[in-house]
Amino acid sequence: MKIPIVENILSANERLADENRRMLAERGILVVNVMSSPGAGKTSLILRTIEALRDRMRIGVIEGDVASRVDADTIEQLRVPVVQINTGGTCHLDANMIRGSLDQLPLDNLDLLLIENVGNLICPTDFALGEALKVMIPSVPEGDDKPYKYPAMFAAVDAIVVNKVDLLPYVEFNLAVFRRLVQGLNPDVQVFEVSCKTGEGIDQWTAWLSEMRATQVPSEGE
Amino acid sequence: MKIPIVENILSANERLADENRRMLAERGILVVNVMSSPGAGKTSLILRTIEALRDRMRIGVIEGDVASRVDADTIEQLRVPVVQINTGGTCHLDANMIRGSLDQLPLDNLDLLLIENVGNLICPTDFALGEALKVMIPSVPEGDDKPYKYPAMFAAVDAIVVNKVDLLPYVEFNLAVFRRLVQGLNPDVQVFEVSCKTGEGIDQWTAWLSEMRATQVPSEGE
Repeated sequence: MKIPIVENILSANERLADENRRMLAERGILVVNVMSSPGAGKTSLILRTIEALRDRMRIGVIEGDVASRVDADTIEQLRVPVVQINTGGTCHLDANMIRGSLDQLPLDNLDLLLIENVGNLICPTDFALGEALKVMIPSVPEGDDKPYKYPAMFAAVDAIVVNKVDLLPYVEFNLAVFRRLVQGLNPDVQVFEVSCKTGEGIDQWTAWLSEMRATQVPSEGE
Repeated sequence: MKIPIVENILSANERLADENRRMLAERGILVVNVMSSPGAGKTSLILRTIEALRDRMRIGVIEGDVASRVDADTIEQLRVPVVQINTGGTCHLDANMIRGSLDQLPLDNLDLLLIENVGNLICPTDFALGEALKVMIPSVPEGDDKPYKYPAMFAAVDAIVVNKVDLLPYVEFNLAVFRRLVQGLNPDVQVFEVSCKTGEGIDQWTAWLSEMRATQVPSEGE
């Protein structure tokens, strides 16, 4: 009787995610669930985002990994509040893990909470965390065929940040083909092309994020 | 009562994997479980391996993906027997899926069976398929810190094929650091450095594979 148990876990997770979402939105925090393959650039995009927005927003980070705290250590160097979650083998974060880490963040002093999920294009799709926005980062060296293989992820997200465009001259990645595949799976998704290495395209991404916070999370005075 | 159920699934999988392993070894087939992140180069390495060894070995392929059959179509162009398994959301192949696909392969006419697992560095670690060798492909643009984050995968494999070394000039990847991390997790692992794009390093990899078949799978005359 495997399927009923899985369904129970999923719906319990949905309930918890809804509670997280409500609680965080009430405090005016925009929560972003950042997902990608291993090494596509989740930490790098978070670092670039902090650099670009830290003068305008108070930012916190939750780092998810199977093991290690190397990413949290990197983020901490920018002196923003960061919590590391080690899943110990589980291939995704879930709403309960997020709940357990919120106590360690200064929620009354945050505008934006960036959650770096475990590096994986499959498992995180099924587990809402309480986020307002889902973002995925495909990277150019992975190839332009990934939407064929991980359609649920590409269909589920609000934004796709194509990273490592500085490597376009050296790899086979056809942006037009990629955009067409994405369009078929998710017509309303925002697509950004960036290089976290050179900084190219980061402005458009962070401008969108600022806009999302302005529209989705009314400020306290409103 | 989640843990006992997971344990039952794992041990049932182990039993099936052992049966697959015995049955395939008896037929003199070397079975290789190829694992990596999405887009690291599993299909490209399989194509290069077929090209290099097809005059000396009869090769079959099982392609695992959450969705699509684009990789199987690519492999089929080389006119080798190939079976596509779509897991429909599951983040790894398992021994039962392999069992179900073996009927569709000419097992009496194979020396080498390459199994491309689902693109994922976490889930496939727990599920034996019946393979003689586990191989993983980290790719240079993913960064040299992956052993920290996916230690179980790096510790479990017989060989690590570092792909996309042609991109070394353009990304931050320190081979010495990487090898030191790998050494700490898995002192006996074979490490190869290749570019499936240029063909660099493929000879060493396929020479090792030939040697493994010669030593692990005695030919029928012996």
